Amino acid sequence: MAGGATPTNRDVVVSLERMASVEQIDNHTATMTVEAGVTLEAAQKAALAAGWFLGLDLGSRSSCQIGGNISTNAGGVRVIKYGTVRNQVTGLEVVLPDGSVVADMQKIAKNNTGYDLKQLFIGAEGTLGIVTRAILRLFPVPSAVGTVLCATNGIQASERLLRLLQTEVGDVSAFEIMWPAYYSFVVKGLGGRTPLKIDMPLYALIEVQDVSTDAVTSKLETVIDQAIRHNLVLEAVPAGSTREASRFWAIRDGNPIDTLPCLINFDLGLSIADMADFVDECDRRLVEQWPDSFRFWFGHIGDGNLHLSVSVGEADTTTLSLLEDIVYSITAQYNGSISAEHGIGRLKRPFLNLCRSDEEIAVMRMIKSAIDPHGIMNPAKVI
Amino acid sequence: MAGGATPTNRDVVVSLERMASVEQIDNHTATMTVEAGVTLEAAQKAALAAGWFLGLDLGSRSSCQIGGNISTNAGGVRVIKYGTVRNQVTGLEVVLPDGSVVADMQKIAKNNTGYDLKQLFIGAEGTLGIVTRAILRLFPVPSAVGTVLCATNGIQASERLLRLLQTEVGDVSAFEIMWPAYYSFVVKGLGGRTPLKIDMPLYALIEVQDVSTDAVTSKLETVIDQAIRHNLVLEAVPAGSTREASRFWAIRDGNPIDTLPCLINFDLGLSIADMADFVDECDRRLVEQWPDSFRFWFGHIGDGNLHLSVSVGEADTTTLSLLEDIVYSITAQYNGSISAEHGIGRLKRPFLNLCRSDEEIAVMRMIKSAIDPHGIMNPAKVI
Repeated sequence: MAGGATPTNRDVVVSLERMASVEQIDNHTATMTVEAGVTLEAAQKAALAAGWFLGLDLGSRSSCQIGGNISTNAGGVRVIKYGTVRNQVTGLEVVLPDGSVVADMQKIAKNNTGYDLKQLFIGAEGTLGIVTRAILRLFPVPSAVGTVLCATNGIQASERLLRLLQTEVGDVSAFEIMWPAYYSFVVKGLGGRTPLKIDMPLYALIEVQDVSTDAVTSKLETVIDQAIRHNLVLEAVPAGSTREASRFWAIRDGNPIDTLPCLINFDLGLSIADMADFVDECDRRLVEQWPDSFRFWFGHIGDGNLHLSVSVGEADTTTLSLLEDIVYSITAQYNGSISAEHGIGRLKRPFLNLCRSDEEIAVMRMIKSAIDPHGIMNPAKVI
Repeated sequence: MAGGATPTNRDVVVSLERMASVEQIDNHTATMTVEAGVTLEAAQKAALAAGWFLGLDLGSRSSCQIGGNISTNAGGVRVIKYGTVRNQVTGLEVVLPDGSVVADMQKIAKNNTGYDLKQLFIGAEGTLGIVTRAILRLFPVPSAVGTVLCATNGIQASERLLRLLQTEVGDVSAFEIMWPAYYSFVVKGLGGRTPLKIDMPLYALIEVQDVSTDAVTSKLETVIDQAIRHNLVLEAVPAGSTREASRFWAIRDGNPIDTLPCLINFDLGLSIADMADFVDECDRRLVEQWPDSFRFWFGHIGDGNLHLSVSVGEADTTTLSLLEDIVYSITAQYNGSISAEHGIGRLKRPFLNLCRSDEEIAVMRMIKSAIDPHGIMNPAKVI
């Protein structure tokens, strides 16, 4: 997504694939100790087998590794309930450029003894050291899950629906939005019939988790009914089974989009208040430039994360550069982030100054020089 | 608690008392922008007045300032639900030693663009810069609160009760434990009759918050009844009113203890699994040394935070040093933290190496030297 794991000619690539053991699940502290090479899916399964739930989930769960999740401070679909990875790590072991091992492997949630060094390595994309082990927080397994796919009356209506759900139903664990072009393209690509009409203003996939088995589904449906009466929601389909919920999630995962040629992905962060205007303006500018392009918008409304997948038919340097200029300059105008969850890597490095001040970049450089004076860790990335 | 705000002879003290405005409450992003000098209580009230809830709460709410809460990564009583301050800050403005201003004042929860610098200043106790403004996350107001004070059958029973509540009732927002000596001393000091019998194995003050107005109190009572049948709880009193809940919280706040002469407070972090043995061993060693001492144990079981208030009748350097040696050496044996939430400051600086490795301290020094090369920020503290 950002070229953060793409080596340049003279780099040495270190694989942690064989450091993949789940070392311990501690019921007292509700934590799990893992080696950094374990895949997210393997960690999720180990947690479930021990009667616990891992908060992190994202599309590449079967291939991505916990060390990478930590190094990119991964977000995923349940950030509004569990936070990003940063909120889920209580311990970390990191190998520094000089070979020394910094291990803060305590399991306790509260430990204010000096600078919290692990925070520095979370999201640093491997530029300060290599994450080798971690302790992750575990959560009670949500025994009741309510899932509903609905067509909403736009962004503002979706935001009001989110707040209504948060105050009336409880912990919203996902609130994913999809623009009409995204929805119709994916539904057609997946085949089968569409759960909702095509060309509605906006689509939302909503999931509410609850620990108690009663009430969550009926409470969710009551609020959705109320939202229909207030014209926030135009049409809604609750998932009647886990299988149906998976079908809804497949729409959100959007695999058919990946088949488009020369796909370019953006990962933006914006206040919900600005999202509608931003998408209108950015989409208009892209159509002006490339009238026949595909532009698919989707995101996680609860945390202001907006994704855009664009296919303009080619992806040479000039095209890419023009595309980035358009999208990032409008993002900067709206005081947004050019990388909500995918990181800076190599590709977004030239644009870091669009959302970080000179002072911030100066401090980042200070830290990079202090910890990695010879610049040997993931060179030419981030900073 | 740790002397972190105590100036030495040659220091200049900067007061932020007049930078106390709540600048904005943003309903779209569910955030609040404040100047660092605002008191926690003023921020809590402003949030409530706008229909939102601030997750942070602690005893000194009326005098402590948000800037201090951030600089010490404050915890308080609701960490198991809302996390420490680190989890509640989405934006921060800091003045560095060279006078430059580093501002990461974005309101969005997800922003992975380079190192997350604000994490460095959260909990740094002012040794890297002065926090001047912040953006705090807001939460839906919990409209239903269930509070119960109970006598439990010890630590293990309390832990099982906590897990039962988390899986059967939902979001436990506080689970405070008090040892018998603490409970009886405070109840006597406060006057009035005791809600529970004296000399039970352990006491717990439990609070469960819920957004929906139905069911939380009755669900809480059902689980407590179940816990009584399983001998986890020996006796329980639910709070019948907000006023009664406040009376229970007054016991936990423990003001009568502050009247003891030469009180010395400890703030330890331990795995729940070790807590019972740790308290037994530590208390035994303290009695051996000071047979007539007062030793009051209490804490937040959900996050492994244990407090100890000791009064041995004197607090001269020799006494203090002996006391610290006893408590911290046993803490280190149990792989615990010598400061769960109060920080290192000046007083715990000599003991930092008990829970931080040489490698960790070396990296802390690197960072301190890089950002504050002349050592002018809160000198002689932390590192």
